Amino acid sequence: MAKVCILGGGFIGRFYADALHGQRSRDRVEVVYARKEETAIRFANDYSIPHYTTSMEEAVAHPETEVVVIALPNHIHEEAVMLCVKHKKAVLCTKPLGRNAEEALRMTKACEEAGVFGGYLEDLCYTPKFLKSLQSIKDGAIGRILWAKSRETHPGPHSDWFWNIEMAGGGAILDLGCHCIEIARNFIGKDIKPVEVMCWADTQVKPIDAEDHAIGLVKYENGAIGQFEVSWTFRGGMDLRDEVMGTEGTIWTNSFLRTGFEMFTTGKGEGGYVSEKAESATGWLFPVGDETHELGYTHMFTDMFNAIEEGRTPQESFYDGYVVNAIIDAAYKSAKSKLWEPVQLPDWRGQEGLQKPSVYQEYDADHWFIKEELLPNGDLKIILKKKESGEIIEIEKLNLK
Amino acid sequence: MAKVCILGGGFIGRFYADALHGQRSRDRVEVVYARKEETAIRFANDYSIPHYTTSMEEAVAHPETEVVVIALPNHIHEEAVMLCVKHKKAVLCTKPLGRNAEEALRMTKACEEAGVFGGYLEDLCYTPKFLKSLQSIKDGAIGRILWAKSRETHPGPHSDWFWNIEMAGGGAILDLGCHCIEIARNFIGKDIKPVEVMCWADTQVKPIDAEDHAIGLVKYENGAIGQFEVSWTFRGGMDLRDEVMGTEGTIWTNSFLRTGFEMFTTGKGEGGYVSEKAESATGWLFPVGDETHELGYTHMFTDMFNAIEEGRTPQESFYDGYVVNAIIDAAYKSAKSKLWEPVQLPDWRGQEGLQKPSVYQEYDADHWFIKEELLPNGDLKIILKKKESGEIIEIEKLNLK
Amino acid sequence: MAKVCILGGGFIGRFYADALHGQRSRDRVEVVYARKEETAIRFANDYSIPHYTTSMEEAVAHPETEVVVIALPNHIHEEAVMLCVKHKKAVLCTKPLGRNAEEALRMTKACEEAGVFGGYLEDLCYTPKFLKSLQSIKDGAIGRILWAKSRETHPGPHSDWFWNIEMAGGGAILDLGCHCIEIARNFIGKDIKPVEVMCWADTQVKPIDAEDHAIGLVKYENGAIGQFEVSWTFRGGMDLRDEVMGTEGTIWTNSFLRTGFEMFTTGKGEGGYVSEKAESATGWLFPVGDETHELGYTHMFTDMFNAIEEGRTPQESFYDGYVVNAIIDAAYKSAKSKLWEPVQLPDWRGQEGLQKPSVYQEYDADHWFIKEELLPNGDLKIILKKKESGEIIEIEKLNLK
Amino acid sequence: MAKVCILGGGFIGRFYADALHGQRSRDRVEVVYARKEETAIRFANDYSIPHYTTSMEEAVAHPETEVVVIALPNHIHEEAVMLCVKHKKAVLCTKPLGRNAEEALRMTKACEEAGVFGGYLEDLCYTPKFLKSLQSIKDGAIGRILWAKSRETHPGPHSDWFWNIEMAGGGAILDLGCHCIEIARNFIGKDIKPVEVMCWADTQVKPIDAEDHAIGLVKYENGAIGQFEVSWTFRGGMDLRDEVMGTEGTIWTNSFLRTGFEMFTTGKGEGGYVSEKAESATGWLFPVGDETHELGYTHMFTDMFNAIEEGRTPQESFYDGYVVNAIIDAAYKSAKSKLWEPVQLPDWRGQEGLQKPSVYQEYDADHWFIKEELLPNGDLKIILKKKESGEIIEIEKLNLK
Repeated sequence: MAKVCILGGGFIGRFYADALHGQRSRDRVEVVYARKEETAIRFANDYSIPHYTTSMEEAVAHPETEVVVIALPNHIHEEAVMLCVKHKKAVLCTKPLGRNAEEALRMTKACEEAGVFGGYLEDLCYTPKFLKSLQSIKDGAIGRILWAKSRETHPGPHSDWFWNIEMAGGGAILDLGCHCIEIARNFIGKDIKPVEVMCWADTQVKPIDAEDHAIGLVKYENGAIGQFEVSWTFRGGMDLRDEVMGTEGTIWTNSFLRTGFEMFTTGKGEGGYVSEKAESATGWLFPVGDETHELGYTHMFTDMFNAIEEGRTPQESFYDGYVVNAIIDAAYKSAKSKLWEPVQLPDWRGQEGLQKPSVYQEYDADHWFIKEELLPNGDLKIILKKKESGEIIEIEKLNLK
Repeated sequence: MAKVCILGGGFIGRFYADALHGQRSRDRVEVVYARKEETAIRFANDYSIPHYTTSMEEAVAHPETEVVVIALPNHIHEEAVMLCVKHKKAVLCTKPLGRNAEEALRMTKACEEAGVFGGYLEDLCYTPKFLKSLQSIKDGAIGRILWAKSRETHPGPHSDWFWNIEMAGGGAILDLGCHCIEIARNFIGKDIKPVEVMCWADTQVKPIDAEDHAIGLVKYENGAIGQFEVSWTFRGGMDLRDEVMGTEGTIWTNSFLRTGFEMFTTGKGEGGYVSEKAESATGWLFPVGDETHELGYTHMFTDMFNAIEEGRTPQESFYDGYVVNAIIDAAYKSAKSKLWEPVQLPDWRGQEGLQKPSVYQEYDADHWFIKEELLPNGDLKIILKKKESGEIIEIEKLNLK
Repeated sequence: MAKVCILGGGFIGRFYADALHGQRSRDRVEVVYARKEETAIRFANDYSIPHYTTSMEEAVAHPETEVVVIALPNHIHEEAVMLCVKHKKAVLCTKPLGRNAEEALRMTKACEEAGVFGGYLEDLCYTPKFLKSLQSIKDGAIGRILWAKSRETHPGPHSDWFWNIEMAGGGAILDLGCHCIEIARNFIGKDIKPVEVMCWADTQVKPIDAEDHAIGLVKYENGAIGQFEVSWTFRGGMDLRDEVMGTEGTIWTNSFLRTGFEMFTTGKGEGGYVSEKAESATGWLFPVGDETHELGYTHMFTDMFNAIEEGRTPQESFYDGYVVNAIIDAAYKSAKSKLWEPVQLPDWRGQEGLQKPSVYQEYDADHWFIKEELLPNGDLKIILKKKESGEIIEIEKLNLK
Repeated sequence: MAKVCILGGGFIGRFYADALHGQRSRDRVEVVYARKEETAIRFANDYSIPHYTTSMEEAVAHPETEVVVIALPNHIHEEAVMLCVKHKKAVLCTKPLGRNAEEALRMTKACEEAGVFGGYLEDLCYTPKFLKSLQSIKDGAIGRILWAKSRETHPGPHSDWFWNIEMAGGGAILDLGCHCIEIARNFIGKDIKPVEVMCWADTQVKPIDAEDHAIGLVKYENGAIGQFEVSWTFRGGMDLRDEVMGTEGTIWTNSFLRTGFEMFTTGKGEGGYVSEKAESATGWLFPVGDETHELGYTHMFTDMFNAIEEGRTPQESFYDGYVVNAIIDAAYKSAKSKLWEPVQLPDWRGQEGLQKPSVYQEYDADHWFIKEELLPNGDLKIILKKKESGEIIEIEKLNLK
């Protein structure tokens, strides 16, 4: 059983509390901190939490606090982590870990040096579909990974500080790209070094300073490509989709707008909350069965608390949060310089010196296989490359019946 | 915290144990019973269960047993329930409750008279999609329910006793129809009386005595129609789909083959379990993220244990299991008699004497509204019925631009 | 090149004219008849048709008329066909052929005796998806057909006469069921005799005399089942879906609401026609690329005119229209009698005396194969039936690693 | 009626002939040229073409040739076009127009100066879904276009010359990217100038010199972004998807792998051609109803021949082919230089000097509107920006019931 302290009484704090108290959980939130007292009281009431406070340090230091969950705006993450380090409390921090890699590395090292558990609350790397996809990839079901694209777009976040570039540290890249980058990184392999980033970003619609739309490519040392597509200008709800291409297969997941749940309503009945970021409450709607679960919160906290109890590193640690921040830093640099920017990773803990594998498929002793295809008229074509000369030839098996 | 005893060490027992011990659950299986000792030992080992036995009564009576979960073949349900009644242990029974309404009513009454909690483990009425659909319907999002179709088809069950009509008590109707009937009944309203049933059933493919394919219509007192489509001959995996039509909307859910998770594999990687009833391990596959959750086991046990702790009736009780059995009895009778057969419900606890509502939509003082449609050429047509004469007319608004 | 006369200037006449003049067609509509002169003039102008008239016989007899296309309400089909017989003009009649089998048989025989070509305009048996499905079934891709379900539901037709039971001859069964019945009949085999029908029908919502919702089962001599689901009360647009189960496979087609074309719009742009029977113009919409083509009109007229030119019977002839009417007659009878009603086919031209095949799959010399399944824990189970004793057994291959 | 000469007897030539002779077409192929006589003879036989030859000039100059359709490898396009110019025959050229912009501009100008009709056979800009999407966009249904992504990936082309970088002029970018670029360009607006391109390309799998996988971003003068994703390494069939984001909506189309047609087969029946680039013939398959139509060939030739007859420019002209080539040239340059490369368009015929529009949405006299969202607990949040100070604030409407 874990006794939890939540820092922050907003949107994400509520999602976390729903997950922590969900189903037949043995874990309980014992302390909640919020900046405004009325928020703290309302939150404590809603989730039957015995203690609330408007002092962050009091919350962290509270005797009932074993594990601290940080659900605060980005610019306060470091301060909160340092309080946990000071009071030697295990700490789980919402995404992104820092506003940049420098902040993230300081938090990571502070925890490591103090022997404090640091879990990175990257929920989208814990969705049921993600976990099963990752297992399939590890089992080799789709071969060597060539490309992993993750997309998160919606009509914009729900709190003022997200839109303030100082407090948030960035726009859609930092808010949404952190998910996409870590998803692709998992699929490609966490020990494969991200090398360089090319990113386009623009403020296309909203009256803000940060980017509201961005697309980035992350090149890994083994030749694989990670891609992120993020936007605060998407219309139609929240679009959460991943696509992975491997030499032997493909994975497509859709975690929100098309999950096998479709509803049409004329709107004459009572309205209400449809799902996160839904844009309409009539016509064809696409609800999600159990958002807390589908968005990964349940499996995420299970891994975190199990990891604490078993004394092991969680699937997503502060170090992972740091690598993500380093990639984001390169993305922001690239968006300005219009160049491929190197990923700066002074503290790299994975493999080094990989090269793109080139294992061609053999057709016979003299030829590499390129492909074969059955044509509409029944002819079969086989495309080969002569090993010696490099010449490309085709063999036709005509369907003469 | 609940201390659980599982009766039965097979397929469904494992699904239950996975759910009971899942995530950060505070509940634990303390005792397991299986007919064969080797099964009991393997099960106890796999789930770290301290006690196992090959005596059903010993399991039920065990001091560590607070709640009994029956995961046994249909023909042993009654015996097991009666042991729970004898030893005053709360009992949760897998579906279908009985092989027929007579058995089910005896179990229901025995529990009620002894004050023993009787929960009906109807998992498909607890899937996240189902629960959210049900809430939408209760909120009026799709108006008055006209028709609720539930479909469960797959290539057949995984244990010998299912295929033996004596032990199972029936074929696909009893095995799968029990889900579909209760799903439709929930959508239409549990207090609406099922009146009569028309059912077609046949043994189209398998070398068995029971039906391997059936379709049934269940008429409810308020004019709504429940439909079930069940089969052990379906090819392509397990097809779990519900469709509901209301006067103001539509709900479609797909709980298995199309949930937003798609994978193509050439099969060159390592194979393995894809998902329940999957028929192939190469080509396009449609895995399910977290089967235990998606099939409703998690929410089901949450409701059951919460209900026990709160001293309330669970969402699905033995009485519900009895009503389902009564509908199934009528379906089997109809399949033989080829007639609409009345549902025999000597113990009916819902509303009586309902009639089909006939609330027409008014267009103006003199006309009922039938419909309007925009045609491809831009014309608008409105179809009306004169209140007095009953004559049907159309008004055209030509698009003459 | 065909010179065409269209009888009827309404909704379906326009769809036909769009198809006839579509793409690079060599066929032309030369004559149009409509009851009201203004309709005839507008139609002639819209499609550049040289001749129009308000006399049906004048249209049929017109020297430029080679082929007559009947696009009239149901109660005038017979009169129109008889005019074509009188003037020896090839005739293509919209669906349903008659209001009942008696009318349909009279039309069929009148054409046959006069040597007049009679084509049945059953467009949904000509959609590209249908044609390809049918070919796959004929190639054996899904084995022996066990069940073929066709569903057409929408919020109701667009002209007054549909809602008048005298003129239409029926409600949703006649209007939509005629499609569904013929689709299933094609998949099961046109030479397989439909034997009996069970049908539920009700007027659940609309202020009309005819049924606005119905479900029917059609039993064929070889044990296959056709199912139709039709409604004028569906909310959400037009739902056109077919599902076929065979011993070796499954086919699912969706011809309207989910064809790989999805659009979200806030509605701030200009509105307009979305697609047939669409119910909203904002939120998530599901347009169809080329309705004329997707609904089968293009392939239908290609087959009809080619058949006329080649002197062969078209894929859908008046005789097919007659069989459909006979099944509908039985459906209406069943809806009233609540019994399975025999299909009355005094003129049956297909196979007679079929029986349900019972070809079991052999496992080894002593056993029939029932099924095998890989369980989540890696165990493999095989279910068999002993040929001699009939006993059902299971073989387990435990995954003990 | 058009009398057509096809140059080239391969895969694409057959698709063209199928479309040209399809349905009730009034157009006919009168002459076919192929390099090998046996190919020419077989092609002429298959399509009942009266004349065949192995001399390209003879084919073009043939008296029965009115319109020449070029279905040849990329490196022969210019030679073939010049023959048409010489003999003053209308010419329709397959995609891409040239191997680079220089070739394409020469062909464009040669046709224009000689008054010869030059149609660019960009079939994917003629699919029914594309045409309807384009109309919706022109009607303003999704507002100002922000991003248009087009994806074409499959396991590689079917003829040897594609894989030879000399003959093809490039790899997947030239082969597939030409489609994607022109699709996005149509959605964004053909008169909007493409300004610069960033492209990643690699040879990840195949033993070839050209790229087998590439991703590119095309920046347009008004700030819109076109994106292409192309690959010859995709596993699972042919993936053809477009996605468009506008300020007021979204369009998603899927033209191949998910079009509402799904089939499962155990493979025990007869096999055969499933669809272009299909990778398996068992398990879950996703056929396409009528490929010729769904891939746009039908509407494409309709537009081309109508344009010739009406003396107007077709929707896709040689000039469009030239712009596409110019963008591809920049993409190849960028893939090498790793820089955003300017699109070189010495002959630009659209708008000049556009700027990104910045029309913010007003909330009230003092505030710009950023967004509002309904939270799960019923609270409503509105995010605004103060016009004067630029400060971002939020207004909360708590759900205190």
